[in-house]
Amino acid sequence: MEGKIKGVNLGAWLVLEKWMTPRLFDRTPSDDEYYLAYDMDPEAYEEKIKTHRATFITEGDFVKIASAGFNVVRIPVPYFIFGDREPFIGCLDELDLAFNWARAYGLEVLIDLHTAPYSQNAFDNGGISGVCKWAQHPEEVEFVLNVLTRLAERYKADDALYGIEVLNEPLTPEMWDIIDPQDQYEPRDKELAEGSAPVSFAFLYDFYQEAYDRLREILPPDKAIVFHDGFDLLKWEGFFKEREFDNVMLDTHHYLMFGNDPDKENLEYYQAHLNQTGEQIEKVSKYVPVVTGEWCLYNQQIVKNQKNMTDDEVTAFYNALWQASVDAWNKGDGYFYWTYKLLIDTVNEPDNRGKDAWDVSRAIARGWAQV
Amino acid sequence: MEGKIKGVNLGAWLVLEKWMTPRLFDRTPSDDEYYLAYDMDPEAYEEKIKTHRATFITEGDFVKIASAGFNVVRIPVPYFIFGDREPFIGCLDELDLAFNWARAYGLEVLIDLHTAPYSQNAFDNGGISGVCKWAQHPEEVEFVLNVLTRLAERYKADDALYGIEVLNEPLTPEMWDIIDPQDQYEPRDKELAEGSAPVSFAFLYDFYQEAYDRLREILPPDKAIVFHDGFDLLKWEGFFKEREFDNVMLDTHHYLMFGNDPDKENLEYYQAHLNQTGEQIEKVSKYVPVVTGEWCLYNQQIVKNQKNMTDDEVTAFYNALWQASVDAWNKGDGYFYWTYKLLIDTVNEPDNRGKDAWDVSRAIARGWAQV
Repeated sequence: MEGKIKGVNLGAWLVLEKWMTPRLFDRTPSDDEYYLAYDMDPEAYEEKIKTHRATFITEGDFVKIASAGFNVVRIPVPYFIFGDREPFIGCLDELDLAFNWARAYGLEVLIDLHTAPYSQNAFDNGGISGVCKWAQHPEEVEFVLNVLTRLAERYKADDALYGIEVLNEPLTPEMWDIIDPQDQYEPRDKELAEGSAPVSFAFLYDFYQEAYDRLREILPPDKAIVFHDGFDLLKWEGFFKEREFDNVMLDTHHYLMFGNDPDKENLEYYQAHLNQTGEQIEKVSKYVPVVTGEWCLYNQQIVKNQKNMTDDEVTAFYNALWQASVDAWNKGDGYFYWTYKLLIDTVNEPDNRGKDAWDVSRAIARGWAQV
Repeated sequence: MEGKIKGVNLGAWLVLEKWMTPRLFDRTPSDDEYYLAYDMDPEAYEEKIKTHRATFITEGDFVKIASAGFNVVRIPVPYFIFGDREPFIGCLDELDLAFNWARAYGLEVLIDLHTAPYSQNAFDNGGISGVCKWAQHPEEVEFVLNVLTRLAERYKADDALYGIEVLNEPLTPEMWDIIDPQDQYEPRDKELAEGSAPVSFAFLYDFYQEAYDRLREILPPDKAIVFHDGFDLLKWEGFFKEREFDNVMLDTHHYLMFGNDPDKENLEYYQAHLNQTGEQIEKVSKYVPVVTGEWCLYNQQIVKNQKNMTDDEVTAFYNALWQASVDAWNKGDGYFYWTYKLLIDTVNEPDNRGKDAWDVSRAIARGWAQV
């Protein structure tokens, strides 16, 4: 691939998040994909999961993604992708299909290991809400490394493989305090959640080194190995300057969700913030390539004011925000929008108004985004 | 709505056809939605159906349909929409959602009753393959009339209601002989299929009159009542000239599937055929408004030659076919493409090559179609 990454995430396909596909959680008490598997009758669970996977992302979506101008898809996959962690259902078949679709339509694939057993962040999208104990279980760390090498072996010779991201959003100490994940994502099993703690940078440096060593052995030089920044883009200078890596990339995620002072938020505020982030990306890019692996147009300003804005005003706002964002991400190696599609209904559930901006397929259709 | 109908069918959403969503029939011996319900465990069946409905067509699709330039959606619904025919699962909730989405994005809805108990055509899309006995069961004819009046009562005041089509594709005698539906769609239960026969025009005239009388009582004058032509566009002159109808429309379906002499088929052949169909539509339009409620770009010529054609040649072929088709349909009141989206995989199942032309969302993305 030449030039910047113009990418999109296939979120909510192989890794579920309730807020993105709420109707998949109808008729269950589950808040995340972990309990969904335990709460349901196995046969019914299988139908739900397999039907969703067969319907939500298909060949047609790859056609549309390519024709929209994207060049890489980032595909979040769960740790149980190989089908060896019951009661969860593997999804290697689906990933195989995706690789074939990608190749057919000139797209590349970044495989993103999005979850780990006992979770690396306590988020709903880490698989099990309110629990963050993966790094404390050496056998599960080894399991994850093993999943990564198995993925590398399977796809290493595939022209469509862009690279492998070893772990999505491990939550590091400072961000743990800011986000307070167990408050936002209440654990259902308090006992299981006990002892949850952030992933330290010391652990993460070692884990990334180990993952790199194992994957670089397997992957050809042109396949990237991608590390998430643990929500702290500026903590990696020493790591990358003191070590030798070939074809690695640092993934950083940026959402416009501040919420501390919504009155202060407006387009100029967002633009200034994005500009500042762009400067950081530029600085870090001097010692490691940086990609913004998740971002979107969703923002409080539109949520608050949309009802008083004309369609043209909303479009102009999003267009300006899109441009400022992409300008920032292109200080590095480009971006992956979060996400391609989500099933949120803003018409029948007006509380969702504005959340359609998370869905780039709608953003493109409405003229809010131009890849 | 002003001007011609530029419509699209939401096929394979509330009425299933195995060929359109083959993976929904994985893990079952079923060939149609009738046996799917009987072959599966009820809870697993419910998950499959509800998950498919919640994922396949969503608000985002209405956004994209409107932004593509369509103005009406034709929504096939099954006779069990009200949930009163076990083991089938009703879908009134989904139709309600669709009306709300349509209204929000400036689209109108033609409700199309696509199936009847014991089927009106023996097609897979009639609900039960190889059986055609609905017209022989007066209590089921009454049941269908009752479904129609219930639909009319529910949506009569909805601004988004374009109209109601009383029954899709009843198979009349001459076409029965040509299609030989029980050969193409083999009945699973031979005993049940016994006695299947085409729907006579005499029956159909009476049924349409009765449906009209009951619906016109309920629906405001601006809501259309639509009759399918039973695959014979030229059989309706007497019917419409001898009777008094307000705001009715004749629906005619035209596919480019000849197959009798594939060597003869080329673009000029198709164009000539479409031109001739357009002339018929123009003639019939003198006594009743005509809409082409189903058609698509799929054709044998592309299936046969695609592998020797460049992408640009394929696009040029489809563009010319699109134009010739729409020119023909616009001799009447316009068209509904069949279909908006289907899950066929042409990459992983190369036998499907060319079938992506049935999927207008892909046709638009690839530049084959311009609404």
